Amino acid sequence: MGLVDRERIKLITLQRKIGPALKSVDSEFRRITDGDSPLTADICHHIRQGKSKRFRPTLLLLAAQEDKGSGFSTGAITAAACVELVHTATLVHDDFIDEADVRRGLPSVNVKYGASAALIMGDYLYSKALHTLCVAGLQHAVKLLARTTVLMSEAEMLQLEHRFDMDIGEDRYQQIIYQKTASLIENSCRIGVSFNKRLATHENEFGEFGAKTGLVFQITDDIFDYLGDERRLGKPTGQDWAEGRITLPLIVAWRNADEATKKRIGELAQLRSASDRSACWPEVKQFVTDYGGVDYSFDRARQFAEEAKSALSQVASGPQKDLLAVAVEYVINRLN
Amino acid sequence: MGLVDRERIKLITLQRKIGPALKSVDSEFRRITDGDSPLTADICHHIRQGKSKRFRPTLLLLAAQEDKGSGFSTGAITAAACVELVHTATLVHDDFIDEADVRRGLPSVNVKYGASAALIMGDYLYSKALHTLCVAGLQHAVKLLARTTVLMSEAEMLQLEHRFDMDIGEDRYQQIIYQKTASLIENSCRIGVSFNKRLATHENEFGEFGAKTGLVFQITDDIFDYLGDERRLGKPTGQDWAEGRITLPLIVAWRNADEATKKRIGELAQLRSASDRSACWPEVKQFVTDYGGVDYSFDRARQFAEEAKSALSQVASGPQKDLLAVAVEYVINRLN
Repeated sequence: MGLVDRERIKLITLQRKIGPALKSVDSEFRRITDGDSPLTADICHHIRQGKSKRFRPTLLLLAAQEDKGSGFSTGAITAAACVELVHTATLVHDDFIDEADVRRGLPSVNVKYGASAALIMGDYLYSKALHTLCVAGLQHAVKLLARTTVLMSEAEMLQLEHRFDMDIGEDRYQQIIYQKTASLIENSCRIGVSFNKRLATHENEFGEFGAKTGLVFQITDDIFDYLGDERRLGKPTGQDWAEGRITLPLIVAWRNADEATKKRIGELAQLRSASDRSACWPEVKQFVTDYGGVDYSFDRARQFAEEAKSALSQVASGPQKDLLAVAVEYVINRLN
Repeated sequence: MGLVDRERIKLITLQRKIGPALKSVDSEFRRITDGDSPLTADICHHIRQGKSKRFRPTLLLLAAQEDKGSGFSTGAITAAACVELVHTATLVHDDFIDEADVRRGLPSVNVKYGASAALIMGDYLYSKALHTLCVAGLQHAVKLLARTTVLMSEAEMLQLEHRFDMDIGEDRYQQIIYQKTASLIENSCRIGVSFNKRLATHENEFGEFGAKTGLVFQITDDIFDYLGDERRLGKPTGQDWAEGRITLPLIVAWRNADEATKKRIGELAQLRSASDRSACWPEVKQFVTDYGGVDYSFDRARQFAEEAKSALSQVASGPQKDLLAVAVEYVINRLN
């Protein structure tokens, strides 16, 4: 059984607790993306064939869940679907930017339908999400998601600017991953808890939990790209390096390296074509491990995971607290 | 003096009436697009160098204007800037889709900064507009613009689907131009009048006015592409034909043509490369004129212009009514 499978099983255990609600989220997602033009409908259908882990809706629902298990409001279900919609929109646009061929085991939208369709599809999914929330009268969710989409697009631009930039530094890296990944997870938790009568006043704590969990999520993803075993992960490693995305493991190794090593790696970092860069991937991977990039990133992820859990220590309780802690463990344990 | 110059001068006469407010809209636009990353800021600066006619903010402000000339609320100024922002976002994405090299006399964003930056920039401008409206507490405007962005992206997809489709038909054409162009102009008027204490209950009439004006706007644009004199217009004609966009003049000529002519034009319509299509442009242009495509489209535009003006006949009065009528005349007279 591959790592990805084990990962999914653990998340499934967690999701079993909110199973019927997640099914409703799927139906709502289907309803919203029913598309009036044949091509829109066709692309939406294609996207829905790919298996999503539905991590953001899961967190939203866990935050929304009342202690007594009184079920979920239709608003929470709609909001959960819209959060997944925004996430999907970013994947469609990201795959275009990264020229990715495959998404969730299927051809990416840009490959199957072309660049123009991918661009339009992302726009469609974004605006559908915000409009659906408006129609449902969920103004707080609209505001939070509008803010997140601003942050995400700024992060994409920063990432473009810092492509191939070995001196990007840890602070800038953290800003980018907060904006591009953690912010949507933060706001999934904020939106979720706003439906929770007893805990709605603790939105900031749930936001903090989500933001930190999101940082863990992205850092572990970035470690995968260095540490991963292709056969176990089911996807190739070294993609970030090949495409010039300088992530935490490399930032740290670069910071730690002696002058001679820096000179050598600095030469490799000058390469621009993905194939040239891929050719020296084993050397770069070794460098990152040798100079503590992976260990440091792993420590950092663990630290953020602890901060995520303590953000909720005073406010959540009972099964909800346990389940949210399990969610963080799921994210961090993808590393093991 | 070229047609474009005369056009601009007429609009300037109109805009002189709301000059200081339009200046505030420009400042607000600048404030909103100040971008925190250097690349975002640089692209925003580039975009602001291009001269926009600011037609949508102008209509919004004309609709918002109280009879007594009491000035404009900051909400109206912000909303006007956000409408222009959404319009700008669609131009950036459209230029990418159409592979356009030039926009407002400057290199397009996709040409100057690359496809990825154009995609991200459009996302950034869209989400900035909606988020700015959320922060300003303008929920009604958020809802209207969110709806419009859904319609616009659906229209882009429809346009992609009907590329090269000679049998698209007038109804589908009208749906597309309503969604892609008229809907934003409609909602500029709706949002504008919602700031107008005396007339806010007449949002539907102002919406009707805007929608019809928007149809005139797009139909006249589409006629230009057939009728225009390159030297006077300052841009080449035949672009729609070359790129497979089948617009009203061609739809109508195709409907009117006898079988023999249809057979001949049908063969040309099978061509796919822009250069092959451009090569037979004089023949297609002649066909469209001979078979009444231009005359019919012109009549249709005049008809919508009259409908636009009558939508307001019972509700607007005084200088406001006159100025809005002048706005429609400006759009239709671009043809003469």
